[in-house]
Amino acid sequence: MKRFVAFLAMTAALTTAAQDKPFAIAIHGGSGTITRTTLSPEREAAYRTVLTEALEAGRKVLAANGTSLDAVVAAVKIMEDSPLFNAGKGAVFTHEGTNEMDASIMDGNGRRAGAVAGVTVVKNPIEAARAVMDKSRHVMMAGKGAELFAKDQGLAIVDPKYFWTQERWDQLQKAKERDRIQLDHDAPRKTSEVAENEKLGAVGAVAEDEKFGTVGAVALDKAGNLAAATSTGGLTNKRFGRVGDSPIVGAGTWAENESVAVSATGTGEMFIRGVAAYDIAARVKYKGASPQQAADDALVTVKSLGGRGGVIVLDRTGHAVFSFTTEGMYRGVAKGEAKPEVLIYR
Amino acid sequence: MKRFVAFLAMTAALTTAAQDKPFAIAIHGGSGTITRTTLSPEREAAYRTVLTEALEAGRKVLAANGTSLDAVVAAVKIMEDSPLFNAGKGAVFTHEGTNEMDASIMDGNGRRAGAVAGVTVVKNPIEAARAVMDKSRHVMMAGKGAELFAKDQGLAIVDPKYFWTQERWDQLQKAKERDRIQLDHDAPRKTSEVAENEKLGAVGAVAEDEKFGTVGAVALDKAGNLAAATSTGGLTNKRFGRVGDSPIVGAGTWAENESVAVSATGTGEMFIRGVAAYDIAARVKYKGASPQQAADDALVTVKSLGGRGGVIVLDRTGHAVFSFTTEGMYRGVAKGEAKPEVLIYR
Repeated sequence: MKRFVAFLAMTAALTTAAQDKPFAIAIHGGSGTITRTTLSPEREAAYRTVLTEALEAGRKVLAANGTSLDAVVAAVKIMEDSPLFNAGKGAVFTHEGTNEMDASIMDGNGRRAGAVAGVTVVKNPIEAARAVMDKSRHVMMAGKGAELFAKDQGLAIVDPKYFWTQERWDQLQKAKERDRIQLDHDAPRKTSEVAENEKLGAVGAVAEDEKFGTVGAVALDKAGNLAAATSTGGLTNKRFGRVGDSPIVGAGTWAENESVAVSATGTGEMFIRGVAAYDIAARVKYKGASPQQAADDALVTVKSLGGRGGVIVLDRTGHAVFSFTTEGMYRGVAKGEAKPEVLIYR
Repeated sequence: MKRFVAFLAMTAALTTAAQDKPFAIAIHGGSGTITRTTLSPEREAAYRTVLTEALEAGRKVLAANGTSLDAVVAAVKIMEDSPLFNAGKGAVFTHEGTNEMDASIMDGNGRRAGAVAGVTVVKNPIEAARAVMDKSRHVMMAGKGAELFAKDQGLAIVDPKYFWTQERWDQLQKAKERDRIQLDHDAPRKTSEVAENEKLGAVGAVAEDEKFGTVGAVALDKAGNLAAATSTGGLTNKRFGRVGDSPIVGAGTWAENESVAVSATGTGEMFIRGVAAYDIAARVKYKGASPQQAADDALVTVKSLGGRGGVIVLDRTGHAVFSFTTEGMYRGVAKGEAKPEVLIYR
């Protein structure tokens, strides 16, 4: 009986110790021209519901002593499965009318990483990125090869029609029409090279609301390990197998226990050229900057390159910071047992 | 007459000023188990010849007031056109017997960047990366899309047979045989998952000499602009659209006038996880580390992740440093009008 009481006491002590450990998850669902004027109350409510679900899913994993990796995957999957975000189910269309998705994940414990680029039939691209990290010797796989690997790993494969949504289809038609008008309009006063560039990139002609919508999550588990994950459908009307920052370790995603976990969203090209996610970690490690200062400064660099967007950053104490250079960013944070907080506007 | 003399004097002064400006180029042709025992005198002479040619091609551009971008492309193209290096003509074979090449380039002046991944018909992948940087709004293009873009830009397109070389074909057969033997041998004492991993990654079974051979260049022009370029055929026997560090801005390639230009070679996965090229720049910018110390420290990080390889680093004074954790690295440097220096062993 004495021993049993001692056992109970020990269990209670351990439980308390585990409960004392901080844990947290922060998420984003993309940044852009999101204001109270542009977003209807119904649509805002819909976003808030899914963001809260994603936070709760991640927190549930962490509260039950799960890993930060499992938590970021759980949160990102919920956003991938929603048509509201530009990832998974709600991925935007390429110029050819297909959906090509990118995702990456990183484990702060040992800096393991996995990424896929240009996958078209994987229901949850973040799970494919996780499989690349856990089940292969590689970090990044692209195109058909990545899909073959995902299939071999038994992940959910869907008919490409799964990713068809009316809203994204309409966005593609609008983007194509805008390109046509802009090219016609600009042709007389532009060199053929400039006109050609715009035809190729089609970025100049893309409206803000079609640029963003990438989703991501960062988490800290009770064992003290950080993780980060990012998933996207890329740019509406994109061509030429364009790869943005989301599947690039260091640009769109970063996690190391020695500094911070980061997930980014925005104009991918400038986030790559700014190595935005790792730049935040480097400023923390090498300059002693605070996560907030590091995030703000990294976005100043991205801005100087002509890019806009946002980042979520989590440190090992469970402190989450947000930074964005757009009007709004779908975002949220859940720390320990506290009520999850969801924010949209500046 | 007076005015003509004044003009001549001014021209002479300008020429002297231009001549005084430092310019330099450094190159690598891969790192690995390269020792006097493994390399025959004939083969060593062949490597030295091409490395010298590449340096001279780059230096010629710089001496004639050309840009560092043109210089790194000129140098890399010569190595891509040689069957000796694992890039362009000498690219290794994938598991399927194809050649899938990656390349990236970066302009230190404004941090512009371009990259291609998984191209199979572009004669000089570095030119495709340059075209992505100069002629599109994107930074990275992959697969068929990247090839279509390169074709549209009028780059040299070749029959995939162009990349067939007996030596690389033999290496593929050997790698496949080694995989088979290793899997047979290991099967009884391994879980099916571990065996599956090795089948997938096939990295564990790849001999050192088939892992490396990536080429790269860094240059400083008389205008004070840095540039970097990297090109590779990847891993022998690679599968699943594997993408290594060479086309990843920040991992395999980096250039910014505010810090340094870097090109890396080695076990790509660990260079991605270490964000090796940008990590060197970050150590210089944020810690005030010397380029040599920054390069050495970044490779310590890569080594802690299980990776080996080397980097070339150039700063804005024209000071070039090399660092590698392998037995040797094909490398060279040409500073101003001095005789180019080519080195292979430690």
